Amino acid sequence: MRLISFLQHGKPTIGMETADGIVDLAAADSAFPDDLGAFVRGGTTLRQAAAWVLASNAPRLAAASLTYRPLIPMPGKMICLGLNYQEHAAEGGYQRPDWPTTFLRCPTSLTAHDAAIMRPIVSEQLDYEAELAVVIGRAIRHASAEEGLDAVYGYSCFNDASVRDYQRKTIQWTMGKNFQQTGAFGPALVTADELPRGAAGLSIVCRLNGQVVQQADTAQMIFPVGETLAMLSECVTLEAGDVIVMGTPSGVGHARKPPLWMRHGDSVEVEIEGVGLLRNFIEDEVASRPSSSSEAA
Amino acid sequence: MRLISFLQHGKPTIGMETADGIVDLAAADSAFPDDLGAFVRGGTTLRQAAAWVLASNAPRLAAASLTYRPLIPMPGKMICLGLNYQEHAAEGGYQRPDWPTTFLRCPTSLTAHDAAIMRPIVSEQLDYEAELAVVIGRAIRHASAEEGLDAVYGYSCFNDASVRDYQRKTIQWTMGKNFQQTGAFGPALVTADELPRGAAGLSIVCRLNGQVVQQADTAQMIFPVGETLAMLSECVTLEAGDVIVMGTPSGVGHARKPPLWMRHGDSVEVEIEGVGLLRNFIEDEVASRPSSSSEAA
Repeated sequence: MRLISFLQHGKPTIGMETADGIVDLAAADSAFPDDLGAFVRGGTTLRQAAAWVLASNAPRLAAASLTYRPLIPMPGKMICLGLNYQEHAAEGGYQRPDWPTTFLRCPTSLTAHDAAIMRPIVSEQLDYEAELAVVIGRAIRHASAEEGLDAVYGYSCFNDASVRDYQRKTIQWTMGKNFQQTGAFGPALVTADELPRGAAGLSIVCRLNGQVVQQADTAQMIFPVGETLAMLSECVTLEAGDVIVMGTPSGVGHARKPPLWMRHGDSVEVEIEGVGLLRNFIEDEVASRPSSSSEAA
Repeated sequence: MRLISFLQHGKPTIGMETADGIVDLAAADSAFPDDLGAFVRGGTTLRQAAAWVLASNAPRLAAASLTYRPLIPMPGKMICLGLNYQEHAAEGGYQRPDWPTTFLRCPTSLTAHDAAIMRPIVSEQLDYEAELAVVIGRAIRHASAEEGLDAVYGYSCFNDASVRDYQRKTIQWTMGKNFQQTGAFGPALVTADELPRGAAGLSIVCRLNGQVVQQADTAQMIFPVGETLAMLSECVTLEAGDVIVMGTPSGVGHARKPPLWMRHGDSVEVEIEGVGLLRNFIEDEVASRPSSSSEAA
Protein backbone atom coordinates (compact mmCIF):
# COMPACT_ATOMS: atom_id res chain seq x y z
CA MET A 1 0.00 0.00 0.00
CA ARG A 2 1.28 3.48 -0.93
CA LEU A 3 -0.31 6.40 0.92
CA ILE A 4 -0.01 10.14 0.31
CA SER A 5 -1.02 13.47 1.90
CA PHE A 6 -2.46 16.15 -0.35
CA LEU A 7 -4.88 19.05 -0.67
CA GLN A 8 -8.19 18.58 -2.45
CA HIS A 9 -10.28 21.74 -3.00
CA GLY A 10 -7.93 23.47 -0.55
CA LYS A 11 -8.55 20.97 2.26
CA PRO A 12 -6.13 18.36 3.61
CA THR A 13 -6.87 14.75 2.74
CA ILE A 14 -5.07 11.45 2.35
CA GLY A 15 -4.95 9.15 -0.64
CA MET A 16 -3.78 5.84 -1.94
CA GLU A 17 -1.77 5.28 -5.07
CA THR A 18 -3.13 2.74 -7.56
CA ALA A 19 -2.01 1.80 -11.05
CA ASP A 20 -4.78 4.06 -12.44
CA GLY A 21 -4.22 7.08 -10.17
CA ILE A 22 -4.81 8.34 -6.65
CA VAL A 23 -7.92 7.46 -4.63
CA ASP A 24 -9.01 10.23 -2.20
CA LEU A 25 -9.86 8.29 0.97
CA ALA A 26 -11.71 11.10 2.77
CA ALA A 27 -13.85 11.72 -0.31
CA ALA A 28 -14.67 8.00 -0.46
CA ASP A 29 -15.65 7.79 3.22
CA SER A 30 -15.72 10.60 5.77
CA ALA A 31 -14.70 8.12 8.48
CA PHE A 32 -11.10 8.43 7.29
CA PRO A 33 -8.95 11.08 9.00
CA ASP A 34 -7.55 13.92 6.86
CA ASP A 35 -4.08 13.44 8.37
CA LEU A 36 -1.74 10.57 7.52
CA GLY A 37 -0.32 10.52 11.05
CA ALA A 38 -3.84 9.87 12.39
CA PHE A 39 -4.34 7.19 9.72
CA VAL A 40 -1.16 5.43 10.85
CA ARG A 41 -2.24 5.65 14.51
CA GLY A 42 -5.52 4.00 13.44
CA GLY A 43 -3.59 0.78 12.73
CA THR A 44 -4.99 -2.27 10.96
CA THR A 45 -8.64 -1.14 11.17
CA LEU A 46 -8.06 1.86 8.92
CA ARG A 47 -5.66 -0.10 6.72
CA GLN A 48 -8.28 -2.74 6.01
CA ALA A 49 -10.91 -0.07 5.38
CA ALA A 50 -8.53 1.57 2.90
CA ALA A 51 -8.02 -1.76 1.12
CA TRP A 52 -11.81 -2.05 0.69
CA VAL A 53 -11.95 1.43 -0.84
CA LEU A 54 -9.11 0.46 -3.16
CA ALA A 55 -11.18 -2.47 -4.46
CA SER A 56 -14.14 -0.16 -5.13
CA ASN A 57 -14.77 2.00 -8.17
CA ALA A 58 -13.87 5.22 -6.33
CA PRO A 59 -12.62 7.95 -8.71
CA ARG A 60 -8.92 7.98 -9.62
CA LEU A 61 -7.02 11.31 -9.63
CA ALA A 62 -3.89 12.03 -11.69
CA ALA A 63 -0.91 12.21 -9.30
CA ALA A 64 0.74 14.94 -11.40
CA SER A 65 -2.24 17.28 -10.84
CA LEU A 66 -2.15 17.09 -7.04
CA THR A 67 -0.86 19.57 -4.47
CA TYR A 68 1.06 17.37 -2.04
CA ARG A 69 1.46 18.07 1.67
CA PRO A 70 4.44 17.01 3.80
CA LEU A 71 3.80 13.27 4.18
CA ILE A 72 3.13 13.48 7.93
CA PRO A 73 2.73 17.20 8.59
CA MET A 74 2.81 17.09 12.42
CA PRO A 75 4.71 14.01 13.62
CA GLY A 76 4.77 13.54 17.40
CA LYS A 77 8.52 13.57 16.94
CA MET A 78 10.95 13.37 14.05
CA ILE A 79 14.34 11.99 15.09
CA CYS A 80 17.05 12.41 12.45
CA LEU A 81 20.40 10.62 12.34
CA GLY A 82 23.64 12.25 11.30
CA LEU A 83 26.84 10.47 10.28
CA ASN A 84 25.14 7.15 9.50
CA TYR A 85 27.10 6.27 6.38
CA GLN A 86 30.84 5.75 6.88
CA GLU A 87 32.00 7.73 3.82
CA HIS A 88 29.76 10.68 4.74
CA ALA A 89 31.08 10.73 8.32
CA ALA A 90 34.63 10.71 6.90
CA GLU A 91 33.94 13.54 4.39
CA GLY A 92 32.82 15.76 7.29
CA GLY A 93 35.94 14.92 9.29
CA TYR A 94 34.13 12.73 11.86
CA GLN A 95 35.11 9.34 13.33
CA ARG A 96 32.83 6.34 13.06
CA PRO A 97 30.41 6.81 15.95
CA ASP A 98 29.51 4.23 18.64
CA TRP A 99 25.94 5.41 18.98
CA PRO A 100 23.61 7.15 16.50
CA THR A 101 24.17 10.92 16.37
CA THR A 102 20.71 12.48 16.50
CA PHE A 103 18.88 15.75 16.18
CA LEU A 104 15.17 16.60 15.95
CA ARG A 105 13.25 18.38 13.22
CA CYS A 106 10.15 20.46 13.95
CA PRO A 107 7.02 20.69 11.73
CA THR A 108 7.70 24.25 10.48
CA SER A 109 10.88 22.90 8.86
CA LEU A 110 8.97 20.50 6.57
CA THR A 111 7.94 20.84 2.94
CA ALA A 112 6.06 18.61 0.48
CA HIS A 113 6.82 16.63 -2.66
CA ASP A 114 6.73 18.85 -5.78
CA ALA A 115 6.93 21.96 -3.55
CA ALA A 116 9.68 24.50 -2.86
CA ILE A 117 12.62 24.00 -0.56
CA MET A 118 13.23 27.52 0.70
CA ARG A 119 16.69 29.06 0.41
CA PRO A 120 16.84 31.51 3.30
CA ILE A 121 17.70 35.19 3.11
CA VAL A 122 20.39 34.84 5.76
CA SER A 123 22.55 32.16 4.11
CA GLU A 124 23.81 30.92 0.76
CA GLN A 125 24.87 27.53 2.13
CA LEU A 126 21.80 25.41 1.35
CA ASP A 127 22.79 21.75 0.88
CA TYR A 128 20.94 18.55 -0.10
CA GLU A 129 20.88 15.25 1.85
CA ALA A 130 19.09 12.18 0.47
CA GLU A 131 17.68 10.02 3.26
CA LEU A 132 15.38 7.11 4.04
CA ALA A 133 12.47 7.98 6.39
CA VAL A 134 10.96 5.33 8.67
CA VAL A 135 7.39 5.72 9.99
CA ILE A 136 6.57 3.92 13.25
CA GLY A 137 3.31 1.94 13.35
CA ARG A 138 2.94 1.12 17.04
CA ALA A 139 4.55 2.17 20.31
CA ILE A 140 7.82 0.49 21.32
CA ARG A 141 10.12 0.90 24.32
CA HIS A 142 13.21 -1.18 25.16
CA ALA A 143 12.69 -3.10 21.94
CA SER A 144 15.09 -5.49 20.25
CA ALA A 145 16.10 -4.79 16.63
CA GLU A 146 13.60 -7.41 15.44
CA GLU A 147 10.81 -5.96 17.58
CA GLY A 148 11.72 -2.55 16.21
CA LEU A 149 11.37 -3.77 12.62
CA ASP A 150 8.05 -5.43 13.46
CA ALA A 151 6.73 -2.03 14.60
CA VAL A 152 7.61 -0.19 11.37
CA TYR A 153 4.55 0.96 9.42
CA GLY A 154 6.44 1.94 6.29
CA TYR A 155 9.08 4.00 4.55
CA SER A 156 9.41 7.17 2.51
CA CYS A 157 12.00 9.57 1.06
CA PHE A 158 13.40 12.62 2.81
CA ASN A 159 15.62 15.48 1.69
CA ASP A 160 17.23 16.76 4.89
CA ALA A 161 18.20 20.08 3.29
CA SER A 162 20.64 21.82 5.62
CA VAL A 163 21.88 25.37 6.06
CA ARG A 164 25.54 24.63 6.70
CA ASP A 165 26.80 27.89 8.22
CA TYR A 166 23.96 27.86 10.77
CA GLN A 167 24.50 24.12 11.36
CA ARG A 168 28.10 24.89 12.39
CA LYS A 169 27.57 28.31 14.03
CA THR A 170 27.49 26.52 17.40
CA ILE A 171 28.34 22.99 18.51
CA GLN A 172 24.71 21.87 18.06
CA TRP A 173 23.40 21.38 14.51
CA THR A 174 19.73 22.04 15.34
CA MET A 175 19.22 25.47 13.78
CA GLY A 176 20.88 24.58 10.47
CA LYS A 177 18.58 21.55 10.31
CA ASN A 178 15.36 23.41 11.08
CA PHE A 179 15.14 26.34 8.71
CA GLN A 180 11.64 27.09 7.51
CA GLN A 181 10.44 24.79 4.72
CA THR A 182 13.67 22.88 4.11
CA GLY A 183 12.96 19.23 4.97
CA ALA A 184 11.18 17.59 2.04
CA PHE A 185 9.10 14.55 2.99
CA GLY A 186 7.31 12.22 0.54
CA PRO A 187 5.90 11.55 -1.94
CA ALA A 188 4.38 8.32 -0.56
CA LEU A 189 4.39 6.18 2.57
CA VAL A 190 5.16 2.67 1.30
CA THR A 191 4.06 0.01 3.77
CA ALA A 192 6.80 -2.25 5.07
CA ASP A 193 5.35 -5.40 3.47
CA GLU A 194 6.25 -4.02 0.02
CA LEU A 195 9.98 -3.69 0.78
CA PRO A 196 12.87 -5.82 2.02
CA ARG A 197 12.96 -6.06 5.83
CA GLY A 198 14.45 -2.85 7.27
CA ALA A 199 14.42 -1.36 3.73
CA ALA A 200 17.96 -2.73 3.47
CA GLY A 201 19.81 -3.17 0.19
CA LEU A 202 18.02 -0.39 -1.72
CA SER A 203 19.72 2.05 -4.04
CA ILE A 204 19.51 5.67 -2.78
CA VAL A 205 20.34 8.53 -5.13
CA CYS A 206 20.27 12.32 -5.04
CA ARG A 207 20.22 14.33 -8.29
CA LEU A 208 20.75 18.08 -8.55
CA ASN A 209 19.55 19.48 -11.86
CA GLY A 210 19.62 15.95 -13.25
CA GLN A 211 23.24 15.20 -12.21
CA VAL A 212 23.82 12.39 -9.70
CA VAL A 213 25.43 13.95 -6.60
CA GLN A 214 24.88 11.13 -4.08
CA GLN A 215 24.62 7.41 -4.80
CA ALA A 216 24.72 4.63 -2.25
CA ASP A 217 22.92 1.58 -0.92
CA THR A 218 20.84 1.60 2.26
CA ALA A 219 22.78 -1.53 3.31
CA GLN A 220 25.78 0.78 3.89
CA MET A 221 24.23 2.40 6.96
CA ILE A 222 26.42 2.19 10.07
CA PHE A 223 23.29 1.73 12.22
CA PRO A 224 20.63 -0.10 10.19
CA VAL A 225 16.93 0.54 10.83
CA GLY A 226 16.27 -2.23 13.38
CA GLU A 227 19.36 -1.53 15.45
CA THR A 228 18.61 2.22 15.40
CA LEU A 229 15.05 1.69 16.65
CA ALA A 230 16.35 -0.58 19.42
CA MET A 231 18.90 2.00 20.57
CA LEU A 232 16.51 4.96 20.43
CA SER A 233 13.89 2.97 22.33
CA GLU A 234 16.33 2.68 25.28
CA CYS A 235 15.67 6.38 25.78
CA VAL A 236 12.15 7.15 24.57
CA THR A 237 8.90 5.54 23.60
CA LEU A 238 8.68 5.55 19.83
CA GLU A 239 5.00 6.11 19.08
CA ALA A 240 2.77 5.42 16.08
CA GLY A 241 3.27 8.22 13.57
CA ASP A 242 6.76 9.14 14.82
CA VAL A 243 9.36 9.44 12.08
CA ILE A 244 13.02 8.38 12.12
CA VAL A 245 15.21 9.79 9.34
CA MET A 246 18.21 7.56 8.69
CA GLY A 247 21.06 9.87 7.67
CA THR A 248 22.67 10.64 4.33
CA PRO A 249 25.46 9.04 2.29
CA SER A 250 28.56 10.87 1.01
CA GLY A 251 28.53 13.43 -1.77
CA VAL A 252 26.96 16.40 0.03
CA GLY A 253 27.69 19.87 -1.33
CA HIS A 254 29.62 21.30 1.62
CA ALA A 255 32.28 18.57 1.41
CA ARG A 256 33.05 19.36 -2.25
CA LYS A 257 35.83 21.64 -3.43
CA PRO A 258 34.57 24.16 -4.27
CA PRO A 259 31.35 23.65 -2.26
CA LEU A 260 28.17 23.06 -4.24
CA TRP A 261 25.18 25.00 -2.91
CA MET A 262 21.58 24.84 -4.12
CA ARG A 263 20.23 28.02 -5.74
CA HIS A 264 16.90 29.52 -6.78
CA GLY A 265 15.44 27.53 -9.66
CA ASP A 266 17.46 24.35 -9.04
CA SER A 267 15.68 21.01 -9.18
CA VAL A 268 16.61 18.34 -6.63
CA GLU A 269 15.48 14.72 -6.47
CA VAL A 270 15.83 11.96 -3.89
CA GLU A 271 15.09 8.51 -5.29
CA ILE A 272 15.05 5.30 -3.27
CA GLU A 273 14.53 2.00 -5.05
CA GLY A 274 10.99 0.73 -4.46
CA VAL A 275 10.18 3.69 -2.16
CA GLY A 276 9.73 6.56 -4.59
CA LEU A 277 11.04 9.71 -6.16
CA LEU A 278 10.84 12.94 -4.15
CA ARG A 279 11.21 16.01 -6.36
CA ASN A 280 11.62 19.61 -5.21
CA PHE A 281 12.67 22.95 -6.57
CA ILE A 282 14.64 25.63 -4.78
CA GLU A 283 13.04 29.00 -4.19
CA ASP A 284 14.62 32.07 -2.62
CA GLU A 285 12.88 33.25 0.54
CA VAL A 286 11.15 36.56 -0.03
CA ALA A 287 11.57 38.89 2.94
CA SER A 288 8.15 38.78 4.51
CA ARG A 289 6.51 38.65 7.86
CA PRO A 290 4.12 35.83 8.72
CA SER A 291 0.54 36.44 7.66
CA SER A 292 -1.34 37.62 10.73
CA SER A 293 -3.74 34.71 10.93
CA SER A 294 -3.10 34.46 14.64
CA GLU A 295 -4.36 37.31 16.73
CA ALA A 296 -2.23 39.62 18.84
CA ALA A 297 -1.37 38.08 22.19
CA MET B 1 -3.51 35.98 34.34
CA ARG B 2 -2.12 32.61 35.44
CA LEU B 3 -3.21 29.58 33.41
CA ILE B 4 -2.70 25.87 34.07
CA SER B 5 -3.26 22.49 32.38
CA PHE B 6 -4.75 19.69 34.47
CA LEU B 7 -6.97 16.62 34.51
CA GLN B 8 -10.50 16.81 35.86
CA HIS B 9 -12.40 13.51 36.17
CA GLY B 10 -9.65 11.98 34.02
CA LYS B 11 -10.10 14.44 31.16
CA PRO B 12 -7.74 17.23 30.09
CA THR B 13 -8.84 20.76 30.84
CA ILE B 14 -7.37 24.19 31.44
CA GLY B 15 -7.79 26.47 34.40
CA MET B 16 -7.04 29.86 35.83
CA GLU B 17 -5.48 30.57 39.18
CA THR B 18 -7.31 32.96 41.47
CA ALA B 19 -6.69 33.96 45.05
CA ASP B 20 -9.45 31.50 46.11
CA GLY B 21 -8.39 28.56 43.94
CA ILE B 22 -8.44 27.27 40.38
CA VAL B 23 -11.35 27.91 37.99
CA ASP B 24 -11.91 25.09 35.47
CA LEU B 25 -12.53 26.97 32.21
CA ALA B 26 -13.90 24.03 30.20
CA ALA B 27 -16.36 23.25 33.01
CA ALA B 28 -17.48 26.90 33.04
CA ASP B 29 -18.00 27.04 29.25
CA SER B 30 -17.55 24.23 26.74
CA ALA B 31 -16.39 26.80 24.16
CA PHE B 32 -12.94 26.77 25.80
CA PRO B 33 -10.41 24.29 24.37
CA ASP B 34 -9.07 21.56 26.66
CA ASP B 35 -5.49 22.31 25.59
CA LEU B 36 -3.50 25.34 26.71
CA GLY B 37 -1.66 25.52 23.36
CA ALA B 38 -5.02 25.91 21.61
CA PHE B 39 -6.04 28.52 24.20
CA VAL B 40 -2.89 30.54 23.44
CA ARG B 41 -3.52 30.25 19.68
CA GLY B 42 -7.01 31.63 20.33
CA GLY B 43 -5.44 34.98 21.27
CA THR B 44 -7.27 37.91 22.84
CA THR B 45 -10.76 36.51 22.19
CA LEU B 46 -10.23 33.56 24.51
CA ARG B 47 -8.28 35.68 26.97
CA GLN B 48 -11.15 38.11 27.34
CA ALA B 49 -13.64 35.25 27.66
CA ALA B 50 -11.47 33.78 30.43
CA ALA B 51 -11.44 37.13 32.24
CA TRP B 52 -15.26 37.14 32.23
CA VAL B 53 -15.33 33.65 33.73
CA LEU B 54 -12.88 34.81 36.38
CA ALA B 55 -15.30 37.56 37.38
CA SER B 56 -18.15 35.03 37.70
CA ASN B 57 -18.99 32.83 40.66
CA ALA B 58 -17.61 29.68 38.93
CA PRO B 59 -16.47 27.05 41.47
CA ARG B 60 -12.91 27.30 42.84
CA LEU B 61 -10.77 24.14 43.10
CA ALA B 62 -7.87 23.63 45.51
CA ALA B 63 -4.62 23.68 43.51
CA ALA B 64 -3.05 21.08 45.82
CA SER B 65 -5.74 18.54 44.90
CA LEU B 66 -5.19 18.75 41.14
CA THR B 67 -3.41 16.39 38.77
CA TYR B 68 -1.38 18.74 36.58
CA ARG B 69 -0.47 18.08 32.94
CA PRO B 70 2.66 19.38 31.20
CA LEU B 71 1.78 23.07 30.72
CA ILE B 72 1.59 22.83 26.91
CA PRO B 73 1.57 19.08 26.24
CA MET B 74 2.10 19.22 22.44
CA PRO B 75 3.90 22.42 21.48
CA GLY B 76 4.39 22.93 17.72
CA LYS B 77 8.04 23.19 18.64
CA MET B 78 10.08 23.56 21.80
CA ILE B 79 13.46 25.19 21.18
CA CYS B 80 15.85 24.97 24.14
CA LEU B 81 19.01 27.00 24.66
CA GLY B 82 22.22 25.63 26.11
CA LEU B 83 25.12 27.63 27.49
CA ASN B 84 23.09 30.80 28.04
CA TYR B 85 24.58 31.83 31.39
CA GLN B 86 28.30 32.62 31.34
CA GLU B 87 29.21 30.72 34.54
CA HIS B 88 27.34 27.61 33.35
CA ALA B 89 29.10 27.66 29.97
CA ALA B 90 32.43 27.95 31.81
CA GLU B 91 31.64 25.08 34.24
CA GLY B 92 31.06 22.78 31.23
CA GLY B 93 34.34 23.88 29.63
CA TYR B 94 32.70 25.93 26.86
CA GLN B 95 33.58 29.37 25.49
CA ARG B 96 31.07 32.20 25.47
CA PRO B 97 29.06 31.56 22.28
CA ASP B 98 28.32 34.09 19.50
CA TRP B 99 24.93 32.64 18.72
CA PRO B 100 22.46 30.72 20.90
CA THR B 101 23.27 27.01 21.12
CA THR B 102 19.99 25.19 20.58
CA PHE B 103 18.36 21.78 20.68
CA LEU B 104 14.74 20.67 20.46
CA ARG B 105 12.63 18.73 22.93
CA CYS B 106 9.81 16.42 21.84
CA PRO B 107 6.46 15.95 23.66
CA THR B 108 7.24 12.44 25.00
CA SER B 109 10.08 14.02 26.99
CA LEU B 110 7.73 16.26 29.01
CA THR B 111 6.29 15.82 32.50
CA ALA B 112 3.98 17.88 34.69
CA HIS B 113 4.18 19.90 37.90
CA ASP B 114 3.87 17.67 40.98
CA ALA B 115 4.58 14.59 38.81
CA ALA B 116 7.58 12.27 38.49
CA ILE B 117 10.74 13.01 36.56
CA MET B 118 11.75 9.54 35.40
CA ARG B 119 15.26 8.28 36.14
CA PRO B 120 15.94 5.86 33.29
CA ILE B 121 17.04 2.25 33.60
CA VAL B 122 20.02 2.81 31.32
CA SER B 123 21.74 5.66 33.20
CA GLU B 124 22.50 6.98 36.68
CA GLN B 125 23.45 10.44 35.42
CA LEU B 126 20.15 12.31 35.80
CA ASP B 127 20.81 16.02 36.37
CA TYR B 128 18.61 19.08 37.09
CA GLU B 129 18.54 22.37 35.14
CA ALA B 130 16.37 25.29 36.28
CA GLU B 131 15.16 27.35 33.31
CA LEU B 132 12.75 30.08 32.26
CA ALA B 133 10.24 29.01 29.56
CA VAL B 134 8.82 31.55 27.10
CA VAL B 135 5.48 30.89 25.35
CA ILE B 136 4.95 32.64 22.01
CA GLY B 137 1.58 34.37 21.50
CA ARG B 138 1.61 35.17 17.79
CA ALA B 139 3.67 34.28 14.74
CA ILE B 140 6.90 36.19 14.15
CA ARG B 141 9.59 35.99 11.45
CA HIS B 142 12.61 38.28 10.99
CA ALA B 143 11.53 40.13 14.11
CA SER B 144 13.52 42.70 16.08
CA ALA B 145 14.13 42.06 19.77
CA GLU B 146 11.31 44.47 20.65
CA GLU B 147 8.91 42.84 18.18
CA GLY B 148 9.90 39.48 19.66
CA LEU B 149 9.02 40.65 23.18
CA ASP B 150 5.72 42.08 21.93
CA ALA B 151 4.82 38.58 20.65
CA VAL B 152 5.41 36.80 23.99
CA TYR B 153 2.24 35.41 25.56
CA GLY B 154 3.79 34.55 28.88
CA TYR B 155 6.35 32.71 30.97
CA SER B 156 6.67 29.57 33.04
CA CYS B 157 9.23 27.37 34.81
CA PHE B 158 11.06 24.44 33.25
CA ASN B 159 13.34 21.74 34.66
CA ASP B 160 15.42 20.61 31.68
CA ALA B 161 16.44 17.36 33.42
CA SER B 162 19.26 15.81 31.41
CA VAL B 163 20.81 12.36 31.16
CA ARG B 164 24.46 13.39 30.96
CA ASP B 165 26.14 10.24 29.61
CA TYR B 166 23.64 10.07 26.73
CA GLN B 167 23.97 13.83 26.20
CA ARG B 168 27.71 13.35 25.60
CA LYS B 169 27.64 9.91 23.96
CA THR B 170 27.84 11.70 20.59
CA ILE B 171 28.56 15.29 19.56
CA GLN B 172 24.83 16.12 19.56
CA TRP B 173 23.05 16.50 22.93
CA THR B 174 19.58 15.56 21.64
CA MET B 175 19.13 12.09 23.15
CA GLY B 176 20.31 13.10 26.63
CA LYS B 177 17.79 15.95 26.49
CA ASN B 178 14.83 13.86 25.33
CA PHE B 179 14.54 10.91 27.68
CA GLN B 180 10.99 9.89 28.43
CA GLN B 181 9.27 12.08 31.05
CA THR B 182 12.26 14.22 32.04
CA GLY B 183 11.39 17.81 31.10
CA ALA B 184 9.15 19.30 33.78
CA PHE B 185 6.97 22.19 32.56
CA GLY B 186 4.75 24.34 34.74
CA PRO B 187 2.98 24.91 37.03
CA ALA B 188 1.39 28.02 35.46
CA LEU B 189 1.64 30.16 32.34
CA VAL B 190 1.97 33.72 33.69
CA THR B 191 0.98 36.29 31.08
CA ALA B 192 3.69 38.76 30.11
CA ASP B 193 1.81 41.78 31.52
CA GLU B 194 2.37 40.46 35.07
CA LEU B 195 6.17 40.41 34.77
CA PRO B 196 9.04 42.76 33.89
CA ARG B 197 9.57 43.03 30.12
CA GLY B 198 11.47 39.95 28.88
CA ALA B 199 11.13 38.45 32.39
CA ALA B 200 14.49 40.08 33.09
CA GLY B 201 15.88 40.64 36.57
CA LEU B 202 14.08 37.73 38.25
CA SER B 203 15.67 35.40 40.78
CA ILE B 204 15.89 31.79 39.51
CA VAL B 205 16.63 28.99 41.97
CA CYS B 206 16.88 25.20 41.90
CA ARG B 207 16.56 23.18 45.11
CA LEU B 208 17.35 19.49 45.44
CA ASN B 209 15.84 17.99 48.60
CA GLY B 210 15.48 21.50 49.99
CA GLN B 211 19.14 22.53 49.38
CA VAL B 212 19.81 25.38 46.96
CA VAL B 213 21.91 23.96 44.09
CA GLN B 214 21.47 26.75 41.51
CA GLN B 215 20.84 30.43 42.16
CA ALA B 216 21.04 33.23 39.62
CA ASP B 217 19.18 36.14 38.08
CA THR B 218 17.53 35.97 34.66
CA ALA B 219 19.33 39.25 33.85
CA GLN B 220 22.55 37.19 33.66
CA MET B 221 21.51 35.46 30.42
CA ILE B 222 24.04 35.85 27.60
CA PHE B 223 21.19 36.09 25.08
CA PRO B 224 18.17 37.71 26.76
CA VAL B 225 14.65 36.78 25.68
CA GLY B 226 14.08 39.50 23.06
CA GLU B 227 17.45 39.04 21.38
CA THR B 228 16.98 35.26 21.35
CA LEU B 229 13.58 35.53 19.67
CA ALA B 230 15.03 37.91 17.07
CA MET B 231 17.91 35.53 16.27
CA LEU B 232 15.74 32.39 16.11
CA SER B 233 13.24 34.19 13.89
CA GLU B 234 15.99 34.68 11.28
CA CYS B 235 15.68 30.92 10.72
CA VAL B 236 12.11 29.89 11.47
CA THR B 237 8.65 31.27 12.03
CA LEU B 238 7.95 31.20 15.75
CA GLU B 239 4.27 30.36 16.03
CA ALA B 240 1.64 30.88 18.74
CA GLY B 241 2.04 28.10 21.32
CA ASP B 242 5.71 27.46 20.51
CA VAL B 243 7.97 27.35 23.55
CA ILE B 244 11.51 28.68 23.95
CA VAL B 245 13.45 27.43 26.99
CA MET B 246 16.16 29.87 27.98
CA GLY B 247 19.02 27.77 29.37
CA THR B 248 20.27 27.11 32.89
CA PRO B 249 22.66 28.89 35.25
CA SER B 250 25.71 27.31 36.90
CA GLY B 251 25.52 24.73 39.67
CA VAL B 252 24.42 21.66 37.71
CA GLY B 253 25.23 18.25 39.15
CA HIS B 254 27.62 16.99 36.49
CA ALA B 255 30.02 19.91 37.01
CA ARG B 256 30.37 19.17 40.75
CA LYS B 257 33.16 17.10 42.27
CA PRO B 258 31.99 14.49 42.94
CA PRO B 259 29.03 14.77 40.54
CA LEU B 260 25.58 15.10 42.12
CA TRP B 261 22.93 12.95 40.43
CA MET B 262 19.22 12.83 41.21
CA ARG B 263 17.92 9.56 42.65
CA HIS B 264 14.63 7.80 43.29
CA GLY B 265 12.67 9.67 45.95
CA ASP B 266 14.50 12.98 45.57
CA SER B 267 12.47 16.18 45.48
CA VAL B 268 13.50 18.92 43.05
CA GLU B 269 12.14 22.45 42.73
CA VAL B 270 12.59 25.24 40.20
CA GLU B 271 11.43 28.60 41.47
CA ILE B 272 11.40 31.82 39.45
CA GLU B 273 10.42 35.07 41.13
CA GLY B 274 6.88 36.06 40.13
CA VAL B 275 6.57 33.08 37.77
CA GLY B 276 6.06 30.17 40.11
CA LEU B 277 7.40 27.11 41.85
CA LEU B 278 7.70 23.89 39.85
CA ARG B 279 8.01 20.85 42.11
CA ASN B 280 8.83 17.29 41.03
CA PHE B 281 9.96 14.03 42.55
CA ILE B 282 12.34 11.51 41.01
CA GLU B 283 11.07 8.03 40.25
CA ASP B 284 13.06 5.09 38.90
CA GLU B 285 11.82 3.80 35.56
CA VAL B 286 10.28 0.37 35.93
CA ALA B 287 11.24 -1.90 33.03
CA SER B 288 8.05 -2.07 31.08
CA ARG B 289 6.81 -2.01 27.53
CA PRO B 290 4.33 0.60 26.38
CA SER B 291 0.73 -0.28 27.00
CA SER B 292 -0.65 -1.57 23.70
CA SER B 293 -3.21 1.15 23.19
CA SER B 294 -2.12 1.47 19.59
CA GLU B 295 -2.92 -1.46 17.37
CA ALA B 296 -0.41 -3.63 15.56
CA ALA B 297 0.82 -1.99 12.37
